[in-house]
Amino acid sequence: MSLAEPLASDGVTSSRAGRPTKSLMLFAGRSHPALAEAIAEKLNVSVTPQTALEFANGEIFVRFNESVRGCDAFVLQSHDRPINEWLMEQLIMVDALKRASAKRITAVLPFYPYARQDKKHRGREPISARLVADLLRTAGADRLMTMDLHTAQIQGFFDGPVDHLFAMPILADHIRRRYVGRDLAVVSPDSGRVRLAEQWADALGGTSLAFIHKTRDPLRPNEAVANRVVGDVMGRTCVVIDDMIDTGGTVAAGVRELLAAGASDVLIAATHAVMSEPARERLSACGVREVIVTDTLPLSEHKRFPQLTVLSVAPLIARAIREVFGDGSVTSLFDGRS
Amino acid sequence: MSLAEPLASDGVTSSRAGRPTKSLMLFAGRSHPALAEAIAEKLNVSVTPQTALEFANGEIFVRFNESVRGCDAFVLQSHDRPINEWLMEQLIMVDALKRASAKRITAVLPFYPYARQDKKHRGREPISARLVADLLRTAGADRLMTMDLHTAQIQGFFDGPVDHLFAMPILADHIRRRYVGRDLAVVSPDSGRVRLAEQWADALGGTSLAFIHKTRDPLRPNEAVANRVVGDVMGRTCVVIDDMIDTGGTVAAGVRELLAAGASDVLIAATHAVMSEPARERLSACGVREVIVTDTLPLSEHKRFPQLTVLSVAPLIARAIREVFGDGSVTSLFDGRS
Amino acid sequence: MSLAEPLASDGVTSSRAGRPTKSLMLFAGRSHPALAEAIAEKLNVSVTPQTALEFANGEIFVRFNESVRGCDAFVLQSHDRPINEWLMEQLIMVDALKRASAKRITAVLPFYPYARQDKKHRGREPISARLVADLLRTAGADRLMTMDLHTAQIQGFFDGPVDHLFAMPILADHIRRRYVGRDLAVVSPDSGRVRLAEQWADALGGTSLAFIHKTRDPLRPNEAVANRVVGDVMGRTCVVIDDMIDTGGTVAAGVRELLAAGASDVLIAATHAVMSEPARERLSACGVREVIVTDTLPLSEHKRFPQLTVLSVAPLIARAIREVFGDGSVTSLFDGRS
Amino acid sequence: MSLAEPLASDGVTSSRAGRPTKSLMLFAGRSHPALAEAIAEKLNVSVTPQTALEFANGEIFVRFNESVRGCDAFVLQSHDRPINEWLMEQLIMVDALKRASAKRITAVLPFYPYARQDKKHRGREPISARLVADLLRTAGADRLMTMDLHTAQIQGFFDGPVDHLFAMPILADHIRRRYVGRDLAVVSPDSGRVRLAEQWADALGGTSLAFIHKTRDPLRPNEAVANRVVGDVMGRTCVVIDDMIDTGGTVAAGVRELLAAGASDVLIAATHAVMSEPARERLSACGVREVIVTDTLPLSEHKRFPQLTVLSVAPLIARAIREVFGDGSVTSLFDGRS
Amino acid sequence: MSLAEPLASDGVTSSRAGRPTKSLMLFAGRSHPALAEAIAEKLNVSVTPQTALEFANGEIFVRFNESVRGCDAFVLQSHDRPINEWLMEQLIMVDALKRASAKRITAVLPFYPYARQDKKHRGREPISARLVADLLRTAGADRLMTMDLHTAQIQGFFDGPVDHLFAMPILADHIRRRYVGRDLAVVSPDSGRVRLAEQWADALGGTSLAFIHKTRDPLRPNEAVANRVVGDVMGRTCVVIDDMIDTGGTVAAGVRELLAAGASDVLIAATHAVMSEPARERLSACGVREVIVTDTLPLSEHKRFPQLTVLSVAPLIARAIREVFGDGSVTSLFDGRS
Amino acid sequence: MSLAEPLASDGVTSSRAGRPTKSLMLFAGRSHPALAEAIAEKLNVSVTPQTALEFANGEIFVRFNESVRGCDAFVLQSHDRPINEWLMEQLIMVDALKRASAKRITAVLPFYPYARQDKKHRGREPISARLVADLLRTAGADRLMTMDLHTAQIQGFFDGPVDHLFAMPILADHIRRRYVGRDLAVVSPDSGRVRLAEQWADALGGTSLAFIHKTRDPLRPNEAVANRVVGDVMGRTCVVIDDMIDTGGTVAAGVRELLAAGASDVLIAATHAVMSEPARERLSACGVREVIVTDTLPLSEHKRFPQLTVLSVAPLIARAIREVFGDGSVTSLFDGRS
Repeated sequence: MSLAEPLASDGVTSSRAGRPTKSLMLFAGRSHPALAEAIAEKLNVSVTPQTALEFANGEIFVRFNESVRGCDAFVLQSHDRPINEWLMEQLIMVDALKRASAKRITAVLPFYPYARQDKKHRGREPISARLVADLLRTAGADRLMTMDLHTAQIQGFFDGPVDHLFAMPILADHIRRRYVGRDLAVVSPDSGRVRLAEQWADALGGTSLAFIHKTRDPLRPNEAVANRVVGDVMGRTCVVIDDMIDTGGTVAAGVRELLAAGASDVLIAATHAVMSEPARERLSACGVREVIVTDTLPLSEHKRFPQLTVLSVAPLIARAIREVFGDGSVTSLFDGRS
Repeated sequence: MSLAEPLASDGVTSSRAGRPTKSLMLFAGRSHPALAEAIAEKLNVSVTPQTALEFANGEIFVRFNESVRGCDAFVLQSHDRPINEWLMEQLIMVDALKRASAKRITAVLPFYPYARQDKKHRGREPISARLVADLLRTAGADRLMTMDLHTAQIQGFFDGPVDHLFAMPILADHIRRRYVGRDLAVVSPDSGRVRLAEQWADALGGTSLAFIHKTRDPLRPNEAVANRVVGDVMGRTCVVIDDMIDTGGTVAAGVRELLAAGASDVLIAATHAVMSEPARERLSACGVREVIVTDTLPLSEHKRFPQLTVLSVAPLIARAIREVFGDGSVTSLFDGRS
Repeated sequence: MSLAEPLASDGVTSSRAGRPTKSLMLFAGRSHPALAEAIAEKLNVSVTPQTALEFANGEIFVRFNESVRGCDAFVLQSHDRPINEWLMEQLIMVDALKRASAKRITAVLPFYPYARQDKKHRGREPISARLVADLLRTAGADRLMTMDLHTAQIQGFFDGPVDHLFAMPILADHIRRRYVGRDLAVVSPDSGRVRLAEQWADALGGTSLAFIHKTRDPLRPNEAVANRVVGDVMGRTCVVIDDMIDTGGTVAAGVRELLAAGASDVLIAATHAVMSEPARERLSACGVREVIVTDTLPLSEHKRFPQLTVLSVAPLIARAIREVFGDGSVTSLFDGRS
Repeated sequence: MSLAEPLASDGVTSSRAGRPTKSLMLFAGRSHPALAEAIAEKLNVSVTPQTALEFANGEIFVRFNESVRGCDAFVLQSHDRPINEWLMEQLIMVDALKRASAKRITAVLPFYPYARQDKKHRGREPISARLVADLLRTAGADRLMTMDLHTAQIQGFFDGPVDHLFAMPILADHIRRRYVGRDLAVVSPDSGRVRLAEQWADALGGTSLAFIHKTRDPLRPNEAVANRVVGDVMGRTCVVIDDMIDTGGTVAAGVRELLAAGASDVLIAATHAVMSEPARERLSACGVREVIVTDTLPLSEHKRFPQLTVLSVAPLIARAIREVFGDGSVTSLFDGRS
Repeated sequence: MSLAEPLASDGVTSSRAGRPTKSLMLFAGRSHPALAEAIAEKLNVSVTPQTALEFANGEIFVRFNESVRGCDAFVLQSHDRPINEWLMEQLIMVDALKRASAKRITAVLPFYPYARQDKKHRGREPISARLVADLLRTAGADRLMTMDLHTAQIQGFFDGPVDHLFAMPILADHIRRRYVGRDLAVVSPDSGRVRLAEQWADALGGTSLAFIHKTRDPLRPNEAVANRVVGDVMGRTCVVIDDMIDTGGTVAAGVRELLAAGASDVLIAATHAVMSEPARERLSACGVREVIVTDTLPLSEHKRFPQLTVLSVAPLIARAIREVFGDGSVTSLFDGRS
Repeated sequence: MSLAEPLASDGVTSSRAGRPTKSLMLFAGRSHPALAEAIAEKLNVSVTPQTALEFANGEIFVRFNESVRGCDAFVLQSHDRPINEWLMEQLIMVDALKRASAKRITAVLPFYPYARQDKKHRGREPISARLVADLLRTAGADRLMTMDLHTAQIQGFFDGPVDHLFAMPILADHIRRRYVGRDLAVVSPDSGRVRLAEQWADALGGTSLAFIHKTRDPLRPNEAVANRVVGDVMGRTCVVIDDMIDTGGTVAAGVRELLAAGASDVLIAATHAVMSEPARERLSACGVREVIVTDTLPLSEHKRFPQLTVLSVAPLIARAIREVFGDGSVTSLFDGRS
C-alpha cells in the first residue's frame, strides 16, 4: 500500500456519472466450499474472493478483496463441526460487511446451528437457537435464509424476514421415482416428528403412517425401557423421516424395530446429514436399504457408506437467492409445512 | 399447495433479468373499506387482496394474497370502534409485511387512536398515545401518516418520520363558500382549543374569537359549576371548532351557550366524527345549523342526521401517499399549524 | 386534589428514615376477576385497586389508585374474548406501571394469546405470537409468566426470563384418582401432539399411546378425507389430551373415532378451555364421559355442561409468583416437558 | 497515583462483610450552584465533589472524586445560557455515572431545554425536545425529573418514568397571601395558554378569565396586526401567567394591553425566568406591579429589577428526590394539571 | 403560509410519473462555511440553504428550505470552539433530516470532537468519544465520515460504517516537495505517537525516527521532571508529527528539545489545527521553520502566523463523499494506517 | 424429575418469610478450571456446579445445577484456544443466566478475545473486538471485567460499565524484588507500545527507555527490512514489555537485537501468555534470562520452559469481584494507565 500517491494529486480516479445498480454478491465461509461453488455457478456469479485465516491463538480474521459498498450480500456458511468456529466466522463476515456499507445482508444457513436448543427443557438452560438469531442480528444481518428448521417456530426468533426452504420435495421426488409401486409407510422415529411424517405421507400420495413409541418406567422417567412401533408397517417399505441425522442412534434403532415388526424394507430420508460419530457405523450396519440426505452439510469421505445417497440443495438455494434479490414471489419455495 | 412439484425439476419459473422498480402497494384493514377504496381509486391502484378473519376466540389472522417483497407499503386503518381490534389488526398486518420483506412500511392512521391519552393527567396513568407509537414501531412501521392530531406533540412520540395532514382547509373552504357574507365568530368549546380557534379565525379571514369558560367551585375542583362565553358572539354566526366529536356533550352544550349568549346561528366543524352514543341525539337536538366533519372514520347510517355534512379526505390522503412514494415535497400538505 | 396546600408550607409530610422493602403487588385486568381474587387470596394480598374503564369510542383507560413506586408488579390478564381488548388493556397497564416507576414488571398470561400463530404456515403471514412478546416488551414487561404454551418455543420469543408453568400434574392427578384401576390409553387428537401424549402416558404410569391420523387426498391436499386411529385403544379408557379446546371440533371427532374403534370410554383433558361456539354442543353430544379443564380462562355458565370438570390453577400461579418474588428455586414448577 | 503499591501485597484493604445499603447521591453541573446547594441542604447531603473543567478547545471534562458504585444518582443541571454547554455537561456526567456503575440515574432538569421545539411547526424541522429526551436516555438516564414543561406531552418523549413537578402552588400561594381581597382576573398572554389560565383561575378561587387575541391580516398571515383583550378585566388586578419569561415581549405587551383595557393593576407569574435580553428593560418599564418567578434558572444581578420576586423551588425538588429515593407516593407533588 | 388554498381544490401540483433518482445533498452547520463551500464546489452542488439561528436563551433552531425527502444527506460540521454548540447543531440537523425522510444520513466530522476522551484514564470518568458516537446514532446518523482520529479505535465506537480519511498523504507530499534532499528525521512529540511517526518515516522514504521521553520523578508521578530526545536527530531536519495541535505546549517544547539536541531545523506537521490560546505565541516563538496543518477546522486571522501553512482537505472530503454516494470503492482513501 | 408430585397437593414446599439477600455466585466455563478454583477460594465461595458438554456435532450445552434466581452472577471464561468455542460457551452461559433471572451478570474475561482486531487496518475488515462486546451485551451481560486490554479504548466498545484491571503492579513488583540494584532499561518491542514502556519505566523508578524500530523499504512497504534499537540499552538489564506473548516472534527478535546492541541481560514481562506455537522454542532459545507472565490463560506443561515464571492474577480478580459485589470503590484496582 502506497499511502502517499493516490491523494497527492487532486485527480479523481474513480468518478462516475450515476449510481451503479445494486449488485448481488455471494460470500462464503470456509466450511463447505463445494456447496458455495455449486450455488455460485447456478447464480452465474463468483464467490467473492476474501482473505480468511486463523491467527495462531485461534482468532479468525476476514477481509474481502473487492469493494462491497452498496451490494446485496448473501453470506453462506454451513454449520458443520467445528460449529462454533464457523458461526463466529459468519458473524465476523457479517460485521465486516456492515462496516463496509453493504446495502443488505442476508445470512444463509442451510443447517441452522443450535436448532435443537429451541426451548428450555428444564430450568436454567439457555435457548441457544434464539441466541444465534440475536447474535446474527447484532452482527448486522438484515435477514436469514435457512432450510428445514428443527422446529418452524425458530423463524420467529429472528426479528426480520426469514426465508425457510424445504428439501422434502427433493427427497420425496427421489423416493417416488426409485420406489415406484412399493407399498410405502412413513415412520416417525419418535413421538415428536409424527406431524412431519404425516406431511410426508401426504406428499408420497397417502401412505400409511407409524411412529416408534418409547415407553418409560415411571420409577426411572428419564430412561426409555422399551420401544414399540405404533401403526401398521407389516410387509411395507418403511420410510423413516427426520430433519437431521446426528449420531444416527434413534433412526438406526428405529430401522431395527421396524424390521422386527415385519417391515419388508426400510429407507431413511433426512435433510441434514450431520453424521457425527458413530453414525456411519450404525447406519451401514442397521439393515437399512438406502439413506437419502442432502448436501446442506459437507460430507467428507469418511462419513460416507454404500447405502448413502446425497442430493444437492444448491439449485434450490440459488433459486431462492435469485428471487430474494429480484424481490420476486418465492412462496412456492418456502413455508410449505405447518 | 403442491409441495412436490415446483422444486422437483430444477427449472426456474420466475427468473428475471434486472431488479424490478419499487412499487407502491396499498393495504387496508377491515374497518373502513369505503375510504380505502376511495384512496385506491385516486391513486389508480387496487387495495391489495388479503385474507383477514377472526378465529373463534377472537384472534385475528391476516395473509396477503400477492407478493409484497420489496414494495413500498401503505397500511391504512381507520380506528373506529372496536378500536383495539383495529389497532391489533394493523399491528399484525405490519408484522406480516415486515416478515415478507416489504421495503418500507408506512402506517396510515387518519384518526390516531388514544390521542387523548397523550400525557399523565395524574399519577400512575399510562401515556397510551406514546404506547401506540411504540407498538407500531415494534411491529415494523418505518413511518406514520396521520391527520389532525389531538396535540401536535404526538408527532414526537414516534421515532421516525411522521406526515401530519390537516383537514382544516377542506372544512374551512366549505364554510367560506356556503356562508359567504355572514359575520362569523370562531369559538373554542373549552379553554384548551383557543389556539386552534385562532388559526381558524385567521383562515376564515380574521373573524372574532371566543371560548367557553368552565368555572369550577374551589371546593369541588373536578366539577364544572358553570359555563360562560368569553368573547363577543352577539349576532354572529358562530363556528364551534374541534379536532373530534366523540359523545358531543361539550360541543352541544357550547351550541346552547352560544345561542343563549345571542349568537344568530351556530355551526360545528371537526375533523374526526367519532360520534359515540349519544352524539347523534345531542347534536341533532341542540339547535346547531350544520355539523361539518370528514370521513376519517366510517359513519354508518345510524350515526347520521339531517344537519350533518361529510367531506372526504381521500383525495388529500391519496396525494400525500403519492408524494411520499415519489419523495416529493409535501410540506404544503403538512404541518400547517403551530 | 388540592394543589395549593401540601406545598405551600415547606413541611415534609412523608419523610422516612430508610428505604422501604420492595413489595409484591398484584394487578389484574378486567377479564377474569375470579381467578385474580383466588390468586390474591393464596398470596395473602389484595388485588391493587385501579380505575379501568372504556371511553365512549372504545379506548381503554387505566389508573392505579395506590402508589406503585418501587414495587415488584405482577400483572395478570386472562386472554379470553374479546382477546384484543384484554391484550391492549394489559399493555396499557404495563405502560402505566413503567411510567409510575415499578421496579420490575412481570406480565402473567395464563393463556398466551395468539399462541397458534407461532410460525409462518405459508408466505406473507405474521408471526403474531412473537409480535405479542415484542409488544409486551415494548410496553415495559421485564418478564413473562405463562402456562402450557401451544409450543414451548414461544418462550424464546421473549427477550427475557419466561416462567412456563404446567397444569398436567393437576389434570393427571385428578384422572389418576378418579379412574383408579382403569386400563388407560393416552390419545393425541392429531399428529402434532403425539409428543405431549407420550409425556402424559409416562405421567399416568406407562399407559398405551395412540393418535388420530388425518388422511389427505393427494388431489385435495388441504382437506382431510378420513381419520384413522393409529395405536391400540380397544377396550381402554382413552384420555384425549390437548393444550386447549377452542371450538372442540377436533377433539369431539376424536372421541367418536375412538368409540368407533372400540374404546370403552373417553375422557378429554386440556389446560385452556377457550370453548368458542359451538364447543359446548359438540362436547356435550360427542359421547365423552368427562371433560377436564382448568380455569386459566373464565368459564361463564353458558359455556358449561354436565360432563365438564374445572380445576383451579390459582394455587399454582400463586406459588410461582411467590417464588419469583422471593428469588427462590421454582424449577419444580416449570419447564417440565421437552 | 502509585501503581505498584496497593496490589503488590495480597492484602485486601476494603473487604466488607455484607452489601452496603443503596445511597442517595446528588450531583450537580456547574450552571446553578446556589440551587444545588439549597437542594442538598434540604436533603441533608453534600453535593458530590467532582472535577469539571473545559479543555482549551471547549471540550468538557468531568470526573467524580468519590466512589459512586451502586448509588442512586440524581444529576441536577439548570439549563441556562450557554444552554448547549450545560446539556452536554449533563450528558457527560450521566455517561460517567453509567460507566462507574451507579445503580439508577435520574436526570433532574428544573427547566427542560428545547421544550418549545416540541413539534414540527412546518416541514423539515427537528423535534428537539424529543431529541433531548433521547440523548439523555442514550447517555444512560433511567428517569427524568422536571418542572412545568412547556407542554405536558413532553413527558411522553422519554421512554421511562418522568416526575413532573409544578410550581403553581408556590406562586399562587404567594399571590393569595399578598393580594388578599383583590378582585383578580387571570390572563393568558396568548391563545395557547388559556387552559393553564383556567387552572390558575380555579386555584385562586374562581376568578374571571381572559386572554390576548392576536389578530392577523389574511394577506400577511405571519404577522399580528392587532392585539385584543378577550374577556372581562375592567377594574381588576390581572395576573398574567405563563410557563416561562424569555425576552418578555409577549407578557410586557400583554401588560400594556390590559392596562389600556382598564385593568387596575397587573402582576406576572411564571415558573421559569429565562430573562434573555431585553427582558429586564421591557418588564421593568411596562407598568407591571410585580413579576413573580422561581429559581429554576439562575438569576444574576443584571437580570433583576425592583418589581421582581423570586421564590425557591429547592424545597419542592428536595422533597421529590427524597420520595423517589424512598419509593414513596409523590402524586401529590406531580401531575396536577391536565 | 396560506393554509386554505393548496388543498381547496383537488388538483395535484406535483404528481410525477416515476420515482426520482436518489440525490446527493450537502448540509453544513455554521462553524466553517469556507470548508463547506469548497467541498460543495468540488462536488458541483450547492450547500442546501437552511435557516439556522439561536433563540434568545441559546437554543438552536434549524429548518431546511428545500425538500430533502429521499435524499442521500451529508451533514458537515467542523467542531471548533464553541464545540458543544456545533455538536448540538449537528445533532439537531440530523434529527430534522430523519424526521423529514432523508434516505440516508452521513455525519461528516473532519475533526472528531472529544476524541481524546476515548477511554477512562482513571475511575469515574466518561468515555465522551463513545458518547458522541451514540448521540449521533440516536439523532439518526446512519454513517460517519471523519479524518485522522486521535485513536483509530474510535471507529469501533459507532455502530455502523465509518469512513476514516487520512491527511498524511497531503501533508507528506508538501514536505517531500519543499524539502527535497534534506536529511529528515520524524519525531513523535511523546511516547504515544511513535507508531504514527514510524508510518510517517516510511511514507517519507525511510527516514530516521525519534521521540521525546518525559521522565517522571517516582515521588511525583503526575509531573514530568525532564524531557529527553530518544533517537538520532543530530544535524537533521526534524519533522514533529501529531494528529492535532491544541495549545501547542507539547510540540513547542519538542521543537526546543530537538534544536538543543542538535537538529538542524524543525518542522511541525499535524492534521487538526485546534490552535487554542496560546498556541500562536508558542509556535511562532519556538524556533520552528514551518508548521503545516490542514483546514479541517476554521483558522481565523488571529490564529495565524508567518510560519503557518494551511493545506485544504476539501478535495479529499469531496472525493470521499462522491464515492460513498456512488457506492464506489474508496479503500484507497481510507484506512491506510495501522 | 417427577412431574406429578410436587403440585398434586397444594402445600407449598419453599415458602419463605422475606426476600433473601442478593448473593454472589461464581460461574466458570471449562477453559481454565485452575484459575476459577483459585478465585473461588479467595472469594470463599464454590464455583457453581453446572452440566456443560458438547453434543456430537460440536454444539455446546450448559445447565446450572442450582437456582440462580436473583443472584449477582460473575461468569469467568479464559479465552484460550479453541477461542471461539470458549467465547460461545460464555455467551450461552450468559443467555442461560438471563433466562433464569439472575439479577446482574458480569462477564469476566481475563484475556479479552479478538482485542487486536480493534479497528479497521484496511477497508472491508471487521472490528471484531467491538463485535465481541456487542455479542456479550446481546446475550445479556450487564457489565464486563477484563485485564490489560490490548488498547484501553476497547472499554468504550461495551455499552455499560467495564472494570479494567492491571497486572503491571504484580509483574513490576516481581522484577523490583528479584533484580534489585540492576541498571534497568524498559524496552518496547515495537513502535506501538512505547507509551506502555514509559509507564513501566516510571513504575520501576525512572529507568531509561528504548524501542525497536522496524525500517521499511519504500518499495516493499509491508515488509520490515531492518530492526534498529532506538534508545540507550548498552550495559543495562533490559525489560521487554508487552500486553501479550502470542507466537513470540517480535519479542524474541527484540531480545536478540538488544543483546546485539550491548544489553547485559534481557527479561520479558507480559500479562497474557497466549504462547502459540512456536513461542516456546523461540523464547527458550533467544537468550532471554526470564520470561514473566500471569495465569490469565492456562499454561499447559508443553507451553512451559525453564526461564518461564508465572504469577497468579486470582487474588486481584477475586478482590475486584468482591468490590463490585459490595459496590465498594475499586479505582485503586482499575484504570491506572493512560
